[in-house]
Amino acid sequence: MKYNRNFYQIKSNDEIFEKIVEEQKTIGYYRLPFQDTKEIKEFAKTVTQKHIVIIGIGGSSLGTYAIHNFLRNKQNDKKLHFLESTDPLDIKKRVNKIDLNNALFIVISKSGTTIETLSIFKYLHSQTTIDKSNCVCITENDSKLNEYANKHQIKTFEISKDVGGRFSVFSSVGLVPLAILGVNIDKLLDGCKEVYNSFFCNKEYYEELMTKARFLVENKNRFNINVVFSYSSLLEGFNKWYIQLWGESLGKININGTRQALTPIGLLGPVDQHSFLQLIIEGVRDKTVTFIKIEDFEEEITIPDISLDYLEELDYINNIKFKNIINHQADSTIKAIEELKDIPTDVITIDKVDEFNIGKLMYSFQLLTSIVGKFVQINTYDQPGVELGKVILKNKLKVKIN
Amino acid sequence: MKYNRNFYQIKSNDEIFEKIVEEQKTIGYYRLPFQDTKEIKEFAKTVTQKHIVIIGIGGSSLGTYAIHNFLRNKQNDKKLHFLESTDPLDIKKRVNKIDLNNALFIVISKSGTTIETLSIFKYLHSQTTIDKSNCVCITENDSKLNEYANKHQIKTFEISKDVGGRFSVFSSVGLVPLAILGVNIDKLLDGCKEVYNSFFCNKEYYEELMTKARFLVENKNRFNINVVFSYSSLLEGFNKWYIQLWGESLGKININGTRQALTPIGLLGPVDQHSFLQLIIEGVRDKTVTFIKIEDFEEEITIPDISLDYLEELDYINNIKFKNIINHQADSTIKAIEELKDIPTDVITIDKVDEFNIGKLMYSFQLLTSIVGKFVQINTYDQPGVELGKVILKNKLKVKIN
Repeated sequence: MKYNRNFYQIKSNDEIFEKIVEEQKTIGYYRLPFQDTKEIKEFAKTVTQKHIVIIGIGGSSLGTYAIHNFLRNKQNDKKLHFLESTDPLDIKKRVNKIDLNNALFIVISKSGTTIETLSIFKYLHSQTTIDKSNCVCITENDSKLNEYANKHQIKTFEISKDVGGRFSVFSSVGLVPLAILGVNIDKLLDGCKEVYNSFFCNKEYYEELMTKARFLVENKNRFNINVVFSYSSLLEGFNKWYIQLWGESLGKININGTRQALTPIGLLGPVDQHSFLQLIIEGVRDKTVTFIKIEDFEEEITIPDISLDYLEELDYINNIKFKNIINHQADSTIKAIEELKDIPTDVITIDKVDEFNIGKLMYSFQLLTSIVGKFVQINTYDQPGVELGKVILKNKLKVKIN
Repeated sequence: MKYNRNFYQIKSNDEIFEKIVEEQKTIGYYRLPFQDTKEIKEFAKTVTQKHIVIIGIGGSSLGTYAIHNFLRNKQNDKKLHFLESTDPLDIKKRVNKIDLNNALFIVISKSGTTIETLSIFKYLHSQTTIDKSNCVCITENDSKLNEYANKHQIKTFEISKDVGGRFSVFSSVGLVPLAILGVNIDKLLDGCKEVYNSFFCNKEYYEELMTKARFLVENKNRFNINVVFSYSSLLEGFNKWYIQLWGESLGKININGTRQALTPIGLLGPVDQHSFLQLIIEGVRDKTVTFIKIEDFEEEITIPDISLDYLEELDYINNIKFKNIINHQADSTIKAIEELKDIPTDVITIDKVDEFNIGKLMYSFQLLTSIVGKFVQINTYDQPGVELGKVILKNKLKVKIN
């Protein structure tokens, strides 16, 4: 009788680090900070349209939305639209807001045949003329969409095959629309580079990221939910992007055939203090909480020195700047949770609202995801679980029940 | 030696039912379907302003937003705004969209001293004149806000003390703004009544809700996450409302001193097929999934009969209505998950987009929450866990660090 099995085991930090270094040969997002952005910047300068319409879903839109949302006060006056859902009421509402005669359509699909994206692209063809004057395609260079674009002399940008959708925000997928909106994409990549160098070279981030990943993995059965609690509406898009990155990367069957999962939740403060916070504080201890704060909102609006009849007890908020109120709210929530001493928390403070900082934040979350994936011994970069639904859908639609 | 302990035990369905019947004496939301709406409807007719501004957070805004979002194509042309976050950039952005000279401000705070609400209310005083001609207050009838309103002859509507914030959508909190927007609030309450009568009288819903609640409770340690997967952007607000209702009601310490929690997650299809679905399908079996579909979107937009060069393989989607595409996507995802046979799912299908159906949906979720709360022997209606943070904040702000 012979029996041999390589059961799951957590590796040492240094072994994981070596595997991450090795992985860079085949996984493309690691090198994105070092790309040449000249072509993208030059193309962006030529765009004259006022309405920029992204037709793409999931990894083709979430990262761009996150950065656009974060930098919303730091962009030019072009209007960005996202078309992604097949909900007919949603499509109508969004298309109604676009000046179709003054729009650039950016079709983003890695495979080139994403059903939502192509459905909407076809629908738009029935609403306006689409040609090389108002269209760009971002896709793999051997996709059918690429062939379509070439035939019609439509400008294309490539998504490299080794860059997955949810790791593509710093590829042309995110950089092309963001550059058109006036975002300084080089500073964005500088933020990524800082994280890259700090992790791989001077190893400043090494301990921070490794320790966090190891804690999450070693306690994943106890704390199966990872909450990101962001204290600013600027991070609403980031939260959504994080949910895709974390959920789709880490919800996998690993090399031992056991199911892995860390479930992401995104909250916004202070609003969700009035919603989800009770559950964190008194509920079962199944959650870790990562707070994200913005040090300086650069907006000085202040509660005026007004006393309202019978509400004088609230005069203690007078003359306080809202940017201080929201950060005091964050700190108070953090302190209340810390005092319980049985909920794992960490706090990320962003110095200011700019390209460099959002690049840093997002790249560090990508890196953390890769490290956790290595610890639990999964393929972080595929998504085999969603294929069956696609096949069932295709078969349903081919029967053509209208 | 004597030892006695009433450890947690799940009661029979009939015992729980009796407790729910008993609870109606002290918990106000049960009777809301049967209220007289005359005063609200008459007031709504007198509103001439174009911009309706809700100043309220959590339970004071989420329910109204959910119904407004669902019925967005069935309202008059007034513009609804929500001011709730203390994020200075968010406040500026939202206030900029309001015509302050043509606005009605609806201040909603049960306690009358909610810090976010009063901060924003004070800030608005510095931007425009607020008096009885453009302001309404919705609050408890002995709150300081009520006294303030009375002193300034500002119209008030009462929130009954026994109606909690997250159970208040069918009180004046939701009905006043919704009536102003042209929503048929009586039909909304008719939907609630149908659920009420069906559960308490003819008991049609009795088995459905009891069975679901019991399943969730008996398996709460295995499936600690309850996903609502809504296949329409019309339900985005409903998802947020559900998260507050479920999380804040059920995240509690029960009568035996043990922590309870069922963690809510809200997803939107088809977009989240490209995000969270992988985690559901291949990840750890720690989630139940409730799908919500809309039978008829009443919107006929169709994929045109266009063939794109090199993309002819996608011609099978031609001539299909989007409302059918999205429902085929829902059905395909449901089927793919059902085939796995180890993820608990249920499917709610809404016949059409109207007041009656959203009333039904939301009231049945409130009832389900109450039943689960009784099973796990908690107080479903309070939120003691968030008080500590409020005290810490007050102390911080009183030190006045600007």
